[in-house]
Amino acid sequence: MTTWVELPPGTQRGIENLPYAVFAQGQAAPRVGVGIGDHVLDLARALGDDVFAQPSLNAFMARGRGGWQDARARIVDLLTDPGRRTTVEPALLPLSEITLQLPFDVADYVDFYSSMHHAQNVGRIFRPDQEPLQPNWRHLPVGYHGRAGTVVVSGTPITRPQGQRRGGADGAPEFGPSQKLDIEAEVGFVVGVGSDHWRSVETRAFEDHVFGVVLVNDWSARDLQAWETVPLGPFLGKSFATSISAWVVPLAALDAAHVAAPRQDPAPLPYLGGDHLYGLDIDLDVSINGRPLSHPRFAGMYWTPAQQLAHMTVNGASVRTGDLYASGTVSGEAREEWGSLLEITWNGRDPVELGDGSSRTFLEDGDTVIISASAPGPDGTRIGFGEVSGTIRPAATD
Amino acid sequence: MTTWVELPPGTQRGIENLPYAVFAQGQAAPRVGVGIGDHVLDLARALGDDVFAQPSLNAFMARGRGGWQDARARIVDLLTDPGRRTTVEPALLPLSEITLQLPFDVADYVDFYSSMHHAQNVGRIFRPDQEPLQPNWRHLPVGYHGRAGTVVVSGTPITRPQGQRRGGADGAPEFGPSQKLDIEAEVGFVVGVGSDHWRSVETRAFEDHVFGVVLVNDWSARDLQAWETVPLGPFLGKSFATSISAWVVPLAALDAAHVAAPRQDPAPLPYLGGDHLYGLDIDLDVSINGRPLSHPRFAGMYWTPAQQLAHMTVNGASVRTGDLYASGTVSGEAREEWGSLLEITWNGRDPVELGDGSSRTFLEDGDTVIISASAPGPDGTRIGFGEVSGTIRPAATD
Repeated sequence: MTTWVELPPGTQRGIENLPYAVFAQGQAAPRVGVGIGDHVLDLARALGDDVFAQPSLNAFMARGRGGWQDARARIVDLLTDPGRRTTVEPALLPLSEITLQLPFDVADYVDFYSSMHHAQNVGRIFRPDQEPLQPNWRHLPVGYHGRAGTVVVSGTPITRPQGQRRGGADGAPEFGPSQKLDIEAEVGFVVGVGSDHWRSVETRAFEDHVFGVVLVNDWSARDLQAWETVPLGPFLGKSFATSISAWVVPLAALDAAHVAAPRQDPAPLPYLGGDHLYGLDIDLDVSINGRPLSHPRFAGMYWTPAQQLAHMTVNGASVRTGDLYASGTVSGEAREEWGSLLEITWNGRDPVELGDGSSRTFLEDGDTVIISASAPGPDGTRIGFGEVSGTIRPAATD
Repeated sequence: MTTWVELPPGTQRGIENLPYAVFAQGQAAPRVGVGIGDHVLDLARALGDDVFAQPSLNAFMARGRGGWQDARARIVDLLTDPGRRTTVEPALLPLSEITLQLPFDVADYVDFYSSMHHAQNVGRIFRPDQEPLQPNWRHLPVGYHGRAGTVVVSGTPITRPQGQRRGGADGAPEFGPSQKLDIEAEVGFVVGVGSDHWRSVETRAFEDHVFGVVLVNDWSARDLQAWETVPLGPFLGKSFATSISAWVVPLAALDAAHVAAPRQDPAPLPYLGGDHLYGLDIDLDVSINGRPLSHPRFAGMYWTPAQQLAHMTVNGASVRTGDLYASGTVSGEAREEWGSLLEITWNGRDPVELGDGSSRTFLEDGDTVIISASAPGPDGTRIGFGEVSGTIRPAATD
């Protein structure tokens, strides 16, 4: 497949990718586009379909898999048929002339904990004298609900949160800006088609419900989290912001990225099982101020996104268009594959050198964190996820 | 103040209350009304304001306190001025001719844990050899995010959830319908006006943001919860459904219900403090199949709703129109004031007699749970919250 659009060399947004985004141009109302090289195709204009003349992907996503396939086929046709060039080209806008926005209205946000290496690292850091994995971990994808209203798009500045942290010997907490502001490099799944209340979604229905994939930085204030977390889990340590990439890569672009999921031992319960399950071979790169920090690989995640969706609904809970569920921190076996500073610096004990003469335990004001990623596409191409970036601003003093 | 509407004797929906709801009548599109006695006033028709011609309160709530006060004053005027009767009466619909729906679109849902007696009971049940309260409990209102998409209106049947629970000695879980299905009697607060990201809401701004109050039954599958809850908190044990009352009682109706909040020791941090804080004297009644189960009193809650809002935003997180935050189980000192079967039956050890010859440890299929409540109004009146009810259906076998 060849597009008539001129692509920059080495682009990861070729005709095989076609990620969706919501963009704004000048004073015009934001609308849905698809990325190709250094351009975005204005879909309402190119396809004459008002479902794209909206500031969110939700209405389009709600059309379901048939609608997604149809739109993708029409877009491929427009961008590969040289005879269409004259009519389509005016709807092709340079990325330099637009700004990307939050691509969908987030309904519920769930964060899982599905990297065994991450869960083991966290266990070893906080409960060094115990078995690192909790007894439930190998039997279900552990997860919790996060705050949907503070999911922000890549590029949004992140203000250092303030809050309570564990204090001195008298048991009273201290209060102030977080001293342990951290990242969590994750991959998120966007629900396009909701499910009925009281009806579980089977693992094999995953692709009927999930529209696409985003990158997620689940910012975490470790000191706030450590103090508040018993017995009901993380709350303010996470709720101040969660950043996602502006591009939503459709699942349809990731066929060549399917890999066998890691063997699960013990075998999961039937509702989590099946030989149709697959992982995704997504390589992440995390940098601070342009200096490489780590390279987590999503292919090694223990629990797959189809299992997460099945688990989330097995009790009868429904999912909705716009639900976002994230994988949990993506961490591999080696330090250079860990997806959080908590792990990389072993909760601050082992500072990490950034290669610019500075080192970090946790994030400093002014730091810019960028997570980018790509996956194999057809014929040796790469499917790029763009990036999720954020720069730390000093704590508000109000 | 006297209304020309004929009220049933002993009504708790007098002119002092005026709770809001969303109702449907026949084939007409659902819209916003206000309750008076056994009737609902169709507000779009009576006030000629299209903000009420919508199937949710959100647009009206977003107008803010001035808009709420203005609407309430106009409604009182319509319902007390005998000269208006002829024109207004056609917009007054008997409750028997309408159905009540979910009153607002739930944005984020947060559940707190703000009854000291409840937290102590839970601690004693699950960690009998330890101090019942966690070290953080007296310093902050502990809370977590729940699932907004499964908040349902009173009367919605509740299907017994299935899921994993702790198994035998080999460590493998069992799977099946919950054997410990429980209630949590709570009071919920509905955010009308959102806040800016990165700007905390002070306790004294509570009434500028919170529109009104609902009753909440936070259904809980204790066996699912116990197995999944480490280390990230409750998930499927709660996410299958949360029921709320159809009526939203405006804060403005609760002036006479203000009570001094319990003394907090140690004194809370400044962002949680202030001598303007108040509790609410709301009496709850919980019944199973028409048999009284308990009478939790909201006045005894340790953390107040203004403190919960301030805490929820102190890290910079924003709230949105439609956010719902619930108090956590309302439990007093004595068994007859406890708001969950977990506590009343001490996790199943001490069955409770219902007075019809049957007893319960946890809920059985077919059980109907009703939580109702009222608070003092002006001049000896009572402000009724209506009820939140739900009947347990057998587990789905799909």
